[in-house]
Amino acid sequence: MSSIEMIVAARARLQGRARRTPLLSSPFLDEIAGRRVLVKAECLQHTGSFKFRGGWSAVSGLDPEIRARGVIAFSSGNHAQGVALAAKLHGVDSVIIMPSDAPRLKIDNTRAVGAEVVLYDRKTQDRDAIGAGIAAERGLTLIRPFDEPFVIAGQGTVGLELAEQAQDEGVNAADVLVPCGGGGLSSGIALALEAVAPGFRVRTCEPEDFDDTARSLASGKVERNAALSGSICDAIVTPEPGKLTLPILQRLAGAGIALSEEHVLQAMALAFKRLKLVIEPGGAVALAAALFHGHALDGDAVIAVASGGNVDTQMFATALARFG
Amino acid sequence: MSSIEMIVAARARLQGRARRTPLLSSPFLDEIAGRRVLVKAECLQHTGSFKFRGGWSAVSGLDPEIRARGVIAFSSGNHAQGVALAAKLHGVDSVIIMPSDAPRLKIDNTRAVGAEVVLYDRKTQDRDAIGAGIAAERGLTLIRPFDEPFVIAGQGTVGLELAEQAQDEGVNAADVLVPCGGGGLSSGIALALEAVAPGFRVRTCEPEDFDDTARSLASGKVERNAALSGSICDAIVTPEPGKLTLPILQRLAGAGIALSEEHVLQAMALAFKRLKLVIEPGGAVALAAALFHGHALDGDAVIAVASGGNVDTQMFATALARFG
Repeated sequence: MSSIEMIVAARARLQGRARRTPLLSSPFLDEIAGRRVLVKAECLQHTGSFKFRGGWSAVSGLDPEIRARGVIAFSSGNHAQGVALAAKLHGVDSVIIMPSDAPRLKIDNTRAVGAEVVLYDRKTQDRDAIGAGIAAERGLTLIRPFDEPFVIAGQGTVGLELAEQAQDEGVNAADVLVPCGGGGLSSGIALALEAVAPGFRVRTCEPEDFDDTARSLASGKVERNAALSGSICDAIVTPEPGKLTLPILQRLAGAGIALSEEHVLQAMALAFKRLKLVIEPGGAVALAAALFHGHALDGDAVIAVASGGNVDTQMFATALARFG
Repeated sequence: MSSIEMIVAARARLQGRARRTPLLSSPFLDEIAGRRVLVKAECLQHTGSFKFRGGWSAVSGLDPEIRARGVIAFSSGNHAQGVALAAKLHGVDSVIIMPSDAPRLKIDNTRAVGAEVVLYDRKTQDRDAIGAGIAAERGLTLIRPFDEPFVIAGQGTVGLELAEQAQDEGVNAADVLVPCGGGGLSSGIALALEAVAPGFRVRTCEPEDFDDTARSLASGKVERNAALSGSICDAIVTPEPGKLTLPILQRLAGAGIALSEEHVLQAMALAFKRLKLVIEPGGAVALAAALFHGHALDGDAVIAVASGGNVDTQMFATALARFG
């Protein structure tokens, strides 16, 4: 089965389950960017991020007997909620392994969508050993956050949708800016666009100092981040690009773009004001690139994926106070 | 031409112009309300409110020769931007008469979407005389904000959409909560639902102490508001119900609901957290009713229209600080 066949099959499984999120725009943003800016509002997806697509794609793609035993995932964030909701809607158990110092809200939200949350101490306990033990004992299937073909295929459905929606707006060639952590969303979108909209090209977007993918794309080998904390864009900080995802991006994506925190917060404030959308910092890097890195882009139009909206009140208030 | 024929014709004129805004939901909101809550996110409409629909419907419904001379409107808010953008997209002039003490941002936004803004002094000048003079001199057509059949028909397209979207979700009977100022949106939706979804019933929502429509529906005669300022819900404060709209609401709507500012701000904070939407106070009264006035509602599901998102940063920050 080819990549695009897997993405089309994922779309069929997601039909009536995932939201077809709108492609939004504002003449005020066009003016700042100096070109048309189309924003794929995936922050409006179930659980507040695109991760529900990959979670549903993976859980729905399991053999029913295997699925019935339940699933397990490691995540302190959006992937946890995506997998948990997908499992709940399939009527199967999910176990999410989270660090005990994860934000209370994320722990509560993950429980609220039906998961059994198992906490571990980052300093004294081995996450993988805990997960492996529970998975073996209960026969759970691990759902990886990005290095997993069914997950990549699920995220790729964002690419099918935005290509159709952009073409409806008369846009047939554009850079497609995608927030990038492990690269599941960007590689899935790149595979979809390769098949259905070859005039569109993915550009990965990351925070400055956590731009492992941009540096890996530039050097041609796997580059790691020096640190794993200290970014406001927590949702898209990973140690290094994925093993499945980086080769896809090397083949299909343009140069990566790294964004300052100033520009990320400013993009959040502009999304509030001009699009009436709540975007989290990690989900706003692509809009920031569209608005403030125009010199790095080609063409009369640009498409930015707003990948998630799970931001806490304090961080959002900070963006508004500084740039609202 | 019947009301529903006018609404269907308005939908045809709005095709490809207005956004088909999504119908959103969150299990967290369902839990607060004790029933399913579906939110029609009209804050994502062009210009940040449903008013673009009525503006486009009215401008596009004019005879081309009359339209070519331009249009005029009185508004300090959402109607101004809706009419101005509709005129701009038709390539005709618009003049918007605004008080000189209107918020700078609204004046700037109205100019930015192409209108000629004429300011007047509320204390010393007669708005209607100024408007009439300009209109007569230049042959402009006045676009009223709600007491105008083409405007009501345009707002009614929200009703056609939400009925289809709710039925796709398996909801065939519900109270439909609608923010109500002059009643253009609520009466338009009521006429649409009467024709296509008779299991749905409109309920008007207003701020406490500015609930002229609720009191008029209760007493059977036109009741006025005691004051015209002092509400955070500035977008939906009018002196009294419309002459065309009140009879429609008397025939089709249930009892009106009045909301406290506390509940409105709390609904805004919950829309931020659970829906990733920015809703202005006047646009949040219906969601507030869905969440906090369940005793006044019937049925297993409720539909709330989030009618606009044009809130200033300070007001939004206040909602988050108090209830985020």
